[in-house]
Amino acid sequence: MNFRGLLIVVSGPSGAGKGTICKALVKRDPSIVVSVSATTREPRNGEEHGIAYHFYDKAAFLSMIDNDGFLEYATVYDNYYGTPKQFVIDKIASGENVLLEIDIQGALQVKKKYPEGIFVFVLPPSMKELKSRIVGRGSETQESLTKRLSSAYSEIEYIKNYDYFIVNDTVEHATDVLQAIISAEKCRVDADIEEIVSKFKEETENA
Amino acid sequence: MNFRGLLIVVSGPSGAGKGTICKALVKRDPSIVVSVSATTREPRNGEEHGIAYHFYDKAAFLSMIDNDGFLEYATVYDNYYGTPKQFVIDKIASGENVLLEIDIQGALQVKKKYPEGIFVFVLPPSMKELKSRIVGRGSETQESLTKRLSSAYSEIEYIKNYDYFIVNDTVEHATDVLQAIISAEKCRVDADIEEIVSKFKEETENA
Repeated sequence: MNFRGLLIVVSGPSGAGKGTICKALVKRDPSIVVSVSATTREPRNGEEHGIAYHFYDKAAFLSMIDNDGFLEYATVYDNYYGTPKQFVIDKIASGENVLLEIDIQGALQVKKKYPEGIFVFVLPPSMKELKSRIVGRGSETQESLTKRLSSAYSEIEYIKNYDYFIVNDTVEHATDVLQAIISAEKCRVDADIEEIVSKFKEETENA
Repeated sequence: MNFRGLLIVVSGPSGAGKGTICKALVKRDPSIVVSVSATTREPRNGEEHGIAYHFYDKAAFLSMIDNDGFLEYATVYDNYYGTPKQFVIDKIASGENVLLEIDIQGALQVKKKYPEGIFVFVLPPSMKELKSRIVGRGSETQESLTKRLSSAYSEIEYIKNYDYFIVNDTVEHATDVLQAIISAEKCRVDADIEEIVSKFKEETENA
């Protein structure tokens, strides 16, 4: 009944668990298409082109920027990262649902280019829990921990730009909620509603 | 995390199966509060006050109309029917979710008084199927059948005033979708978002 697919943008502060939820979602529903980022950084051992990332050289990446080829992009330590636009647009046009996991700055850029997307903000169950998750990774100094927490603190303000929030209390429950959001959004009365009404009218004439 | 409850308005042409879906929903989730209509008609055998209907005399009903006591009301064959407002508002304020099954004209009235409600339009899988359901009831003359179908035909136009549509292909599936809509709506970023952000900020200070 839904003609266009959905772009589901899952975002939130780092440590909230958005990656885990996205993996769990795709495992449950393999029909969901995952958006693969492009980057100019070198492939690491075992990273395949088109699976981990689309690996581009800098000239190709810059040319894509010039041609409005990204839903969003950013530079991190001299490397470019971005979300190729055409892939997402084509999949949606063919009725497929595309999942994009991305940080908050990226999500805000995507929203400008594709406001029809479904923007989901993943919250940790509490900031206490977020802290213990980041500490649990064991890779943080006291300084970087303080920085991460303070960044998460201020990033939560951006929730206002989103359509939905999910509290990541358990992966199971958070994935349930993400699935429910997708099911519900497929039934939204939106721009396609005229087509639905026409379909029913045709059928009435043949009834 | 959600502070206010939701008002879920399930509506659609007669024969689409909204009643069956609502019953199935409440069976699955008994925490949902069903809005009970008020009426001035006489109770039938076995109908209890406050369960089938709230039975009012005409004077009491008219006085409630004067005091803006209904989310919607209508007259059918000299009898008044309406949805008492205070009950719904109180339940929502205490965080409960209220389910209101109602025809399209009623839903449109409710939307004027409570636009924050979630308005769900139930569609039959096709007009052909709607016809066979109405015929299956066996209580229709050819004339009333034609009238019902033509009314359903024109009523479908009202779908544009709703938030969601559910195709009632099977009760099981339609109820799944209705549950998904409720789960998703509980996670909508809405007016309560400031409170959610504050809660997280408090917790950060104690983290």
